[in-house]
Amino acid sequence: MTLLHPDRLFPVDPTTRAIARSLFATVETAPIVSPHGHTDPRWWGENPAFGDPASLLVQPDHYVLRMLVSQGVTYAELGIGPGAEPDPRKVWRTFAAQYHLFRGTPSRLWLDHALSEVFGIHARLSPETADAAYDAIDAALKTEAFRPRALYERFGIEVIATTDSALDDLAQHRAARDGWTGRVIPTYRPDAVVDPEFEGFAANLDRLGAITGCDTATWAGYLEAHRLRRACFIEMGATATDHGHPTARTADLAQSDAAALFDRVRGGTCSADDAELFRAQMLTEHARMSCEDGLVMQLHAGVHRNHNTAVFRAIGRDRGFDIPTQGAFVDALKPLLNAVGMDPRLRLILFTLDEDTYARELAPLAGVWPCLRLGPPWWFHDSFEGMRRFRQLATETAGFANTAGFNDDTRALLSIPARHDVARRVDCAFLAELVTSHRLDEDEAFAIAPQLAHGLARAVYNL
Amino acid sequence: MTLLHPDRLFPVDPTTRAIARSLFATVETAPIVSPHGHTDPRWWGENPAFGDPASLLVQPDHYVLRMLVSQGVTYAELGIGPGAEPDPRKVWRTFAAQYHLFRGTPSRLWLDHALSEVFGIHARLSPETADAAYDAIDAALKTEAFRPRALYERFGIEVIATTDSALDDLAQHRAARDGWTGRVIPTYRPDAVVDPEFEGFAANLDRLGAITGCDTATWAGYLEAHRLRRACFIEMGATATDHGHPTARTADLAQSDAAALFDRVRGGTCSADDAELFRAQMLTEHARMSCEDGLVMQLHAGVHRNHNTAVFRAIGRDRGFDIPTQGAFVDALKPLLNAVGMDPRLRLILFTLDEDTYARELAPLAGVWPCLRLGPPWWFHDSFEGMRRFRQLATETAGFANTAGFNDDTRALLSIPARHDVARRVDCAFLAELVTSHRLDEDEAFAIAPQLAHGLARAVYNL
Amino acid sequence: MTLLHPDRLFPVDPTTRAIARSLFATVETAPIVSPHGHTDPRWWGENPAFGDPASLLVQPDHYVLRMLVSQGVTYAELGIGPGAEPDPRKVWRTFAAQYHLFRGTPSRLWLDHALSEVFGIHARLSPETADAAYDAIDAALKTEAFRPRALYERFGIEVIATTDSALDDLAQHRAARDGWTGRVIPTYRPDAVVDPEFEGFAANLDRLGAITGCDTATWAGYLEAHRLRRACFIEMGATATDHGHPTARTADLAQSDAAALFDRVRGGTCSADDAELFRAQMLTEHARMSCEDGLVMQLHAGVHRNHNTAVFRAIGRDRGFDIPTQGAFVDALKPLLNAVGMDPRLRLILFTLDEDTYARELAPLAGVWPCLRLGPPWWFHDSFEGMRRFRQLATETAGFANTAGFNDDTRALLSIPARHDVARRVDCAFLAELVTSHRLDEDEAFAIAPQLAHGLARAVYNL
Repeated sequence: MTLLHPDRLFPVDPTTRAIARSLFATVETAPIVSPHGHTDPRWWGENPAFGDPASLLVQPDHYVLRMLVSQGVTYAELGIGPGAEPDPRKVWRTFAAQYHLFRGTPSRLWLDHALSEVFGIHARLSPETADAAYDAIDAALKTEAFRPRALYERFGIEVIATTDSALDDLAQHRAARDGWTGRVIPTYRPDAVVDPEFEGFAANLDRLGAITGCDTATWAGYLEAHRLRRACFIEMGATATDHGHPTARTADLAQSDAAALFDRVRGGTCSADDAELFRAQMLTEHARMSCEDGLVMQLHAGVHRNHNTAVFRAIGRDRGFDIPTQGAFVDALKPLLNAVGMDPRLRLILFTLDEDTYARELAPLAGVWPCLRLGPPWWFHDSFEGMRRFRQLATETAGFANTAGFNDDTRALLSIPARHDVARRVDCAFLAELVTSHRLDEDEAFAIAPQLAHGLARAVYNL
Repeated sequence: MTLLHPDRLFPVDPTTRAIARSLFATVETAPIVSPHGHTDPRWWGENPAFGDPASLLVQPDHYVLRMLVSQGVTYAELGIGPGAEPDPRKVWRTFAAQYHLFRGTPSRLWLDHALSEVFGIHARLSPETADAAYDAIDAALKTEAFRPRALYERFGIEVIATTDSALDDLAQHRAARDGWTGRVIPTYRPDAVVDPEFEGFAANLDRLGAITGCDTATWAGYLEAHRLRRACFIEMGATATDHGHPTARTADLAQSDAAALFDRVRGGTCSADDAELFRAQMLTEHARMSCEDGLVMQLHAGVHRNHNTAVFRAIGRDRGFDIPTQGAFVDALKPLLNAVGMDPRLRLILFTLDEDTYARELAPLAGVWPCLRLGPPWWFHDSFEGMRRFRQLATETAGFANTAGFNDDTRALLSIPARHDVARRVDCAFLAELVTSHRLDEDEAFAIAPQLAHGLARAVYNL
Repeated sequence: MTLLHPDRLFPVDPTTRAIARSLFATVETAPIVSPHGHTDPRWWGENPAFGDPASLLVQPDHYVLRMLVSQGVTYAELGIGPGAEPDPRKVWRTFAAQYHLFRGTPSRLWLDHALSEVFGIHARLSPETADAAYDAIDAALKTEAFRPRALYERFGIEVIATTDSALDDLAQHRAARDGWTGRVIPTYRPDAVVDPEFEGFAANLDRLGAITGCDTATWAGYLEAHRLRRACFIEMGATATDHGHPTARTADLAQSDAAALFDRVRGGTCSADDAELFRAQMLTEHARMSCEDGLVMQLHAGVHRNHNTAVFRAIGRDRGFDIPTQGAFVDALKPLLNAVGMDPRLRLILFTLDEDTYARELAPLAGVWPCLRLGPPWWFHDSFEGMRRFRQLATETAGFANTAGFNDDTRALLSIPARHDVARRVDCAFLAELVTSHRLDEDEAFAIAPQLAHGLARAVYNL
């Protein structure tokens, strides 16, 4: 008995299930291509041992935190913030006691997969099994086989991208490259020096100047600093940038207007409108740079961060209180697209948390603009139902070739195989349904399955 | 032969259907917990005989009215308003002649259930069967067995909540409590004294003052009057309040600003913006009161009422011309949530008619804020497809425990068993699909089914 | 072996599939009623031979163009615009080489259907089969059997509506009527003389005046000109108007205000707000005219046309760069509906590209206003998944009778049988699922299937 059924997530109809199984057999053990994620570069550079089960599987996982908090568990009970429970075993027990809350959620699939496939634990987590699971995980984490680089090999990862501040020195990437055969590449994420509302924006610009030797007090120097930093990232293997913006708004101002806007923004006196306009302009500037240096752009827009002000003040970001907002891409992207959207050198991958935009906006946009690709279902939609809806809503208008393959997009290293496993299963199930409803020939499904599993990610991200 | 197939609404796959059947067998005859609805308190206080079939099943049912009107039947033909047809049998025949319009709608399921299970009528309604059905219903309604209290017993109702104006004296509830063993409880619905745009708002405030002995010309006295009225409702068994607002906007003004706003509102000179702000502020005030007195809050937001002005003027509210509007919860609820959203004494149940908000806003919000729960699919979405979409869209992010069980939300007493039957079937079908796609173990499905059928409603509403 | 499986698009469950098959057998060869489309009237008036395969199947099909462009094919390679490839065979080869892009899209279903059923080509299109397919099609197009009128007969078309400018002289319709037995009727599309932002609006008004003899410099004369033109269309068989507006906004100004607005609009000095208000007012004016002359109104709202400015400038409209926008109907339609929405002579068919509005707005509106009907899934949603979602989202609130049957809505004559085939299959599949989940009796499904296939279109459009 295992926590994982071999036919999980497959269609229930026997004919369709058999096709899904056959398709999945061709991709189940294929390499993991992970072009976008948030693993800690230190893991790859220093290859440290992980800590205890709670600090590995509970405390850093915002999906887990938010569900426990939603049912009245406090952050302190989870060992976080003021009055934090210091004993990781007690934190683990609190988690295990509430494991039933995850029924029907992707967290449950990922956690069961990690317990079962990574740690060999085959009893469902519960108050009764909590201590045994804790002991087994804790013991495993003390072994060499559970250090990051060993897990990279074991998981069959071919390449993994991290997401890194424009101000990062990439020392960990250098260490990983120099001391190891794994392929860990950075991604240029310039939010801290692009978003006037980012904490410490002015100081960040100073630091950007210091790092690059550019005069970041001028628009021209500021742009040049971005170019230089992008070049450093490319030198360390980067193939992509990532932009986390409140909205997808873009702008294409005359350069004199952009320079004047930069002066206002740089002076720290800009309005909220100016801040939004500056972010918008910078997306277009980065698109132009991408035409030159070949970095693939990713745009993650549409999240209200830190909805709970008190929690943010007490214990900071990424604690589960980020909430999606309504998406709007058609007018928002028009300036950028009309500026550089027909340039064959540009590739821009769009992500959304507003599924309404799949069929209404994103598939129609990506189904015609040659630079655009649709990123896979993001965050709350990185799930069985979310992935199914994505394929059902996007495929008829955008096809498969305008999608960008799968991103695990996670800081939870142990969930990476689980996430790719879920995506591959859901995609094979979808293809099988196309076959049994005679919307696709079987040979075509076999051609598409490896594309969705790894081929598109490799191609779209230039890996 | 019956109008109802025993496997209705179950999945068609034999394995899945068998599991759904087994799950449903455990809840089919479980007590009905009805924490939110609109039955007439007089029925419970006075236990009157119902009138004729038309006045029971056609004229008060806005779902039925709207469908008939949409295909050209006039209100007058249905016995409503100017020139109303006086003969209920003729109204019934008009209804029966158009019964085909309800194919594929929840009304059809509810009506067939009432005809078949409540009245023992097993021929589909049609022009040919109209008179026989009329006669059978009419005869039944003259018997003691079809009075409200007898139906309460027959339907297996454990508790039923009505929805009552803050100005209501609850005499019918008192009569029911004193003269009968059924549990009928009121719900505090203060719209008439909270919404400055409600008909007779100023007079309503005066009456609120007269009832409570508070000075409702002052902000402090006004709030105190609410507290006293809530206490009276609690004394009669209430466990919840209900708020029907055009939007979900909340506010958390400084008390001095709130008092100044109240003065403007009280003076009858407030703008539409002030009215919206006052409603917003009052949601937060009621949330604070709920922390004190324990009443569970319900928010029903997002309806454009009385879209047809002429029909509203001629025959009033609730005639079928209410239309959903776009929902927006993330910014709207932030003030209230940041004020009291982490208070363990608060519980706030959210309802929407904009299904786009399930996955984008409501499940993410309820999946982290401990005070929030998701109400079941409301009104137009109280249906097979609506309930399925709700589970598919909300479960992966909010789980089951952050949902509030089922509300029949009806003034149509005879449809109550049908509505709970539909909800239980759809939920068991959903659980069965989770099992056969191996997203949930079978024992877990059996643990969840009774929670969805009655357990969550009892727990979330403190019943 | 054929490109088309006889069970395509049917449910995979054997019981449900058998019912779907039986239902489909009753409508498969039923006449095609095509109440809204864009075939070229010249085809019917002059019955010309079609050109080569590329100019018939590739170049005019904006679905095909957009997918090819999205993957980097240029318009020039497709024989369009500056530097256009002159050899249609080379264009065809480019298309065939990219045929895999259409996997999972409705274009694939339509194209396979045309190749297989119309041309008898049974090998999947690919670089290897491109030339043989080209030759077969090219040869066929030179025969009498592939002229428009012969195809009309072969396809079993009972009636087909074109869409025609208010300024069109309908000479081709007259020629078709006088020289042939087919029923080809025009549709009054007044955008060019209603939308102040339409190219050449002022000149168009002058021409409208010249054609009708009305003084289109005055509001009264302008309205009268519309009445006269509508009468001419009716005389040529028209039963409907069609309105392509950026939004669904309507207005019901006092006539003096409308006249003043017309003066501003006519003078060419109107603002964007005035332009929108004028379009809004004209929807209500046309609704009033429809009450008088009986033309059914169609409203196609919510498209951002020509998102790519450079492509628009270089090669014009309808090249694939139209993108849907967010829909909003509730407030927008209120003025028109409150003016004439209860008039039994009015019928207004609503189309949307924002599927969110199906369940939230359109089904609730059409489920009560007697003048309203829901048009079938439009454009990007004229597809398997799109049609399924439409039925799943709209039926429970609007029923079947408030929908308007199927529109092929195409300028691609050869795809007409394919499109009706898809719609009939999807609808039969949906009905079969209602039957096996016991939401509908089997005899009722057999009553509904022909309504959806042709009955409703005939009735709703007064054909």
